Amino acid sequence: MLQIALLGFGTVGSGVAEVLTENRDLIRERTGLDLNVKYILDLRQFPDHPLGDRVVHDIDVILSDPEVFLVAEMMGGLHPAYDFSLAALQAGKNVVTSNKAVVAEYGPELLREAEKRGLRYLFEASVGGGIPIIRPLTEQAAGNPITEICGILNGTTNYILTEMFRHGVSFAEALAAAQKLGYAEADPSADIDGLDTCRKICILAAVAFGVLIPYEKVDTVGIRQVTLEDVREAERHGYAVKLIARALKTDGGLYLKVEPMAVRRDNPLHAVEDVYNGILVRGTVSGDLMFFGKGAGKLPTAGAVVSDILDIASRGENQPKQQLFNKDAALYTPVLPEALKEQTLLDLGYPLSCPPVFEK
Amino acid sequence: MLQIALLGFGTVGSGVAEVLTENRDLIRERTGLDLNVKYILDLRQFPDHPLGDRVVHDIDVILSDPEVFLVAEMMGGLHPAYDFSLAALQAGKNVVTSNKAVVAEYGPELLREAEKRGLRYLFEASVGGGIPIIRPLTEQAAGNPITEICGILNGTTNYILTEMFRHGVSFAEALAAAQKLGYAEADPSADIDGLDTCRKICILAAVAFGVLIPYEKVDTVGIRQVTLEDVREAERHGYAVKLIARALKTDGGLYLKVEPMAVRRDNPLHAVEDVYNGILVRGTVSGDLMFFGKGAGKLPTAGAVVSDILDIASRGENQPKQQLFNKDAALYTPVLPEALKEQTLLDLGYPLSCPPVFEK
Repeated sequence: MLQIALLGFGTVGSGVAEVLTENRDLIRERTGLDLNVKYILDLRQFPDHPLGDRVVHDIDVILSDPEVFLVAEMMGGLHPAYDFSLAALQAGKNVVTSNKAVVAEYGPELLREAEKRGLRYLFEASVGGGIPIIRPLTEQAAGNPITEICGILNGTTNYILTEMFRHGVSFAEALAAAQKLGYAEADPSADIDGLDTCRKICILAAVAFGVLIPYEKVDTVGIRQVTLEDVREAERHGYAVKLIARALKTDGGLYLKVEPMAVRRDNPLHAVEDVYNGILVRGTVSGDLMFFGKGAGKLPTAGAVVSDILDIASRGENQPKQQLFNKDAALYTPVLPEALKEQTLLDLGYPLSCPPVFEK
Repeated sequence: MLQIALLGFGTVGSGVAEVLTENRDLIRERTGLDLNVKYILDLRQFPDHPLGDRVVHDIDVILSDPEVFLVAEMMGGLHPAYDFSLAALQAGKNVVTSNKAVVAEYGPELLREAEKRGLRYLFEASVGGGIPIIRPLTEQAAGNPITEICGILNGTTNYILTEMFRHGVSFAEALAAAQKLGYAEADPSADIDGLDTCRKICILAAVAFGVLIPYEKVDTVGIRQVTLEDVREAERHGYAVKLIARALKTDGGLYLKVEPMAVRRDNPLHAVEDVYNGILVRGTVSGDLMFFGKGAGKLPTAGAVVSDILDIASRGENQPKQQLFNKDAALYTPVLPEALKEQTLLDLGYPLSCPPVFEK
């Protein structure tokens, strides 16, 4: 029996407990692995939860138990999530996380710490919710040099834009609807101003290109300024407005950008609606690939965490070398060379800030 | 240095050699693995090829060399591809393949043989060309019970249907264009009558549900009878005709079907055009996922073979338990229960054989 500990018992944490418990037999049958949640670290008590007796309040209980081979961090926020992750690695435990803030800020340190000890630090759930993207991208990046990534990475903003498109409502009305449904938080700025999307494209670029660009560097435009007229004008010409994140390798460095774009109907990202995410990856060997699915939500995100747990558990003592990435602001370039403009996935449509002149 | 052998040096085999050679440094840097093609089994000689000196004509040279830890079978056809794969496993070598005919026919035996010896038999390239689908589906299936798969799995037929849709040409004209471009073979029946698609959905269903339905059982309709009028009628109402393969788990068994369907514009499969493939997977944890990319072609398919090679190589002596599947014709049900019809991905559109009555 393999013992794991969950850090945080909120939406994702309780989802992971649920997926592991309900699919325990299936997992055993398919992989031969028997996984048990030994501890749950949370400040609260959960007396009525079937796993309520696993709750502890002291990280040291987990760190000092040699039976625990893996810690799943789903606390959110930078601290103490980062500190506990580092301590877990230092205590010889593998770490998986759904925490994009920690990965985008401290990914390089945590990966290096894991590598030093023959452990792994995995973060499938930090981008694209339930979509398997980090693992396929990692695998692709080894034998299939990636040149470009382009995607819709935030469900909240995509829901708002879809509402505007579909029901002809204003940005403010669509945001209110998203908040009512729980898709947007009371303070929605991290989503609608593009920060969440920006962190995610930085993580994807790091996996693909081996360099983590600090997210503050990246030119990021959110959807606050998108008007119903923008959406309607795009629609009249067969486009749909999406918040698009891009990362390209150029001779001058990595070009990353987050901005609203009008996407052509014949591009697969056009059909990515509501809270779904879609990610296009261009590789020199594979050509264009797209990954699509629910970008958020309790179970999809929990499923991604579980897929990391299964990956590590299935490899036992033999964890493979993991690709490291360094944080390097100097490799960021804010300019896309003219020559690249035509050849790239940019031809999916036009930036909302720079519409073409349509014939009347 | 890890020594591998390629069986077959046609399109895919030479593509694998190319990907491994050109990305040798990248692979070493990213994974720490140094892979070398020691032998290439082919009846021909390739005196001008840089790897021409690796060509052998006798499988026993490969089987009796203890340095070879992995054999990549890309011969096509059932025999001797199956026989050599079995012999390689019996000689203690892992096997990866791009050969969907062998997997759809002999997958269960080869998987069992591999399992018996702590080896693996992988077949990422047998479905969806360069799209990573078998590995994500395998991983998903453990912690995320799959209920349904639905996809466009054959590039040739999708190219023909796209041509009809886009240029208003007849089936015969579109087929001729596909043949001219090398997308369709001189005898195109395996593609256009749906056999290729059928084998692929059987493999996907086996991975997802653990049971291989013999492909001869599956109700399969190709695109030979699709008329330009069908395509135009669908288009008038916002649909596009695609050859759709489906696999669903029902109380009565596995329902598999291959048939032309009109797909609604708001479904992500609608945008899958030309030689691209798209695969929708519905899981109880993940919700709907889609995988999209080039379904065929030298480099994409070779890339999928290489991803299997890297998977096995990265795990060294510690190959994990692989999910087996049995061939079981009795578990096939040709009938989809009424109650399931509304809830499934079938609501993506209508079967061409059974169009709705549209208002004029």
